[in-house]
Amino acid sequence: MVGGGQLARMTCQAAIPLGIQFRVLADTAVDSAAQVCPDVRLGDYHQLDDLLAFAAGCDVVTFDHEHVPGEHLAALAAAGVPLAPGAGPLRYTQDKLAMRRELTRLGVPCPRFAAVADVAGVARFAGQAAGWPVVLKAVSGGYDGRGVWVCDDAAAASEVLAHGIGLLAEEYVPFQRELAALVARSAHGQGAAYPVVETVQRGGVCHEVLAPAPGLPAAVAEEAQRLALDIAGSLGVTGLLAVELFETGHGLLVNELAMRPHNSGHWTIEGARTSQFEQHLRAVLDLPLGAPQPAAARTVMANVFGGQDPDVYARYVHVMAADPGVKVHMYGKAVRPGRKIGHVTVTGSGAGEESLGVLRGRALRAASYLGTGKESGA
Amino acid sequence: MVGGGQLARMTCQAAIPLGIQFRVLADTAVDSAAQVCPDVRLGDYHQLDDLLAFAAGCDVVTFDHEHVPGEHLAALAAAGVPLAPGAGPLRYTQDKLAMRRELTRLGVPCPRFAAVADVAGVARFAGQAAGWPVVLKAVSGGYDGRGVWVCDDAAAASEVLAHGIGLLAEEYVPFQRELAALVARSAHGQGAAYPVVETVQRGGVCHEVLAPAPGLPAAVAEEAQRLALDIAGSLGVTGLLAVELFETGHGLLVNELAMRPHNSGHWTIEGARTSQFEQHLRAVLDLPLGAPQPAAARTVMANVFGGQDPDVYARYVHVMAADPGVKVHMYGKAVRPGRKIGHVTVTGSGAGEESLGVLRGRALRAASYLGTGKESGA
Repeated sequence: MVGGGQLARMTCQAAIPLGIQFRVLADTAVDSAAQVCPDVRLGDYHQLDDLLAFAAGCDVVTFDHEHVPGEHLAALAAAGVPLAPGAGPLRYTQDKLAMRRELTRLGVPCPRFAAVADVAGVARFAGQAAGWPVVLKAVSGGYDGRGVWVCDDAAAASEVLAHGIGLLAEEYVPFQRELAALVARSAHGQGAAYPVVETVQRGGVCHEVLAPAPGLPAAVAEEAQRLALDIAGSLGVTGLLAVELFETGHGLLVNELAMRPHNSGHWTIEGARTSQFEQHLRAVLDLPLGAPQPAAARTVMANVFGGQDPDVYARYVHVMAADPGVKVHMYGKAVRPGRKIGHVTVTGSGAGEESLGVLRGRALRAASYLGTGKESGA
Repeated sequence: MVGGGQLARMTCQAAIPLGIQFRVLADTAVDSAAQVCPDVRLGDYHQLDDLLAFAAGCDVVTFDHEHVPGEHLAALAAAGVPLAPGAGPLRYTQDKLAMRRELTRLGVPCPRFAAVADVAGVARFAGQAAGWPVVLKAVSGGYDGRGVWVCDDAAAASEVLAHGIGLLAEEYVPFQRELAALVARSAHGQGAAYPVVETVQRGGVCHEVLAPAPGLPAAVAEEAQRLALDIAGSLGVTGLLAVELFETGHGLLVNELAMRPHNSGHWTIEGARTSQFEQHLRAVLDLPLGAPQPAAARTVMANVFGGQDPDVYARYVHVMAADPGVKVHMYGKAVRPGRKIGHVTVTGSGAGEESLGVLRGRALRAASYLGTGKESGA
């Protein structure tokens, strides 16, 4: 797996019971995955030589992120390195304009969008689409760690345009909530769909995942799963595909795609018969996929964000004593305020003492206390 | 953890989400745990110097087996190495006569037993106890890989005595079935008890674990848990304690003790809120214990034994395609006929299509096929 973040760390963990030999390409020996993996290669995924050296001897190469340059992906493929997903589908995670165009071509419902090069173009899009605000997105990468800007007017759009990066404009969707549909597609085309989840965001950052999405009509859930399976098949994805969706009064719209294990699927470690990390391994190795069925009626995942006090481990004793049922997943990352450094998961029946509200309270309390030493975060 | 077997391998896996730095003392770099652990020290646990070098810098030292010589445990403790469990309780896993005497002193129900030195002693024990057959057990270790012999008569006992090892005689218990009670006790004395399980043995080897033990009256289950918690407390165990029990027409009798993760607890990885491996880590690090409650109504674990064809991985595709819900745990061990090389777990509701019978059939079929390439093993 190229990339040494927490996704590689948790995939490494999932490789152990299957006896799969797992190698990581990490930037440094203290990367999240490098801390737990016995076969770490240090290198720079921007360098083709590093990628080629890393790939030598691997049955398949997969990815913890979508940042490997497209020309390197093509060169790896040309050198005979089996990539999963391949350079073709990965392009749609690296070029949002290409993604929007391809999804539209496939008839997948998306927010209205347009390529924009200047303020006049953004204003024209606003006039033709849903008016202001307009969402500007970096076509590729971003600027200063950000890739999405909600612009209330032309002046705000002008500021974003000043960064000089490629942008597309999207209509601002007044959604009811955000959902995620996670599916796997194996090399020979077998598909498996996890229950559709609700992702609870604050300030554009996922804080909670509720599995399955509470109160989602079965027909809508099936539509979301079908949409995700169709996209995976049409784009030729091998491995996991996470489709982030807006639930609106007029149906579902596709927001983003990710072709790897995804934050919206961390709940599957305890909450599903097959974790997303095991599923990704099975898919990219062309093994039959595991059962995506839930292992508990309700699962709540809450992300842990760092606070001022870096000593997370000193807080274990309190979190574990307060709630023996909460599952702690820390990523071994240096603590910085607001940085995602772990997650917690709580499972239950969804009724009585394990109602969704109780489970959410437990997950949020544990996550907040772990991250900041305070009962309630934010 | 001293010892590089599958127990250390699965404990290593459990250390990852908790961000616990896990070091293994292994005999070779291809030991089961050494394959997956980034911090492996190669050494011989019979050598005090190797143990001391291994322990340097560890917050606590725990064990994958009970074979570290008692004098080395004492020397480690004297050198200030924190051991969990300590040399005191570990003695009772190394000296079965001391174990029997101590349990009897504590009022714990055990089979009748006596130290024996010659055939006359065995015959005398048979006359005073339950007659023939008599079970002879090595007080410590064993001979040629065995430590238990069921002797039908004096001639058979004589053969065992000829090995010249220390022996105790125990009455042959006509038990109804075998149970196991797994508990954890943390350094500061917190206890947690898992549901009592049935262990299904063939030829003295555990093949299946049924969790919870089917049809076990609640009062008997509680008695077994209480017995195990009392033994852990009385002996001062830190970490896990597995108590193997005979269920007889006259109540429970203690057969064996193990102070480490145990084969009878592998089901907890999927089947309980906290796996035995995480629980052991929490206990020996004096963290609050995790919830031992079941995560599924019924869990069946079946051991995988090697067959003639060593290529287990070639059989993944068939096992996974036939049963997407079976969880595979392979230990990375060289395949030899009859050797335990992994286990599989199946969870379910216990009713209808997930009845205990169905779950057992699925687990046994997967285990047999993985191990031997045949649908039914033995």
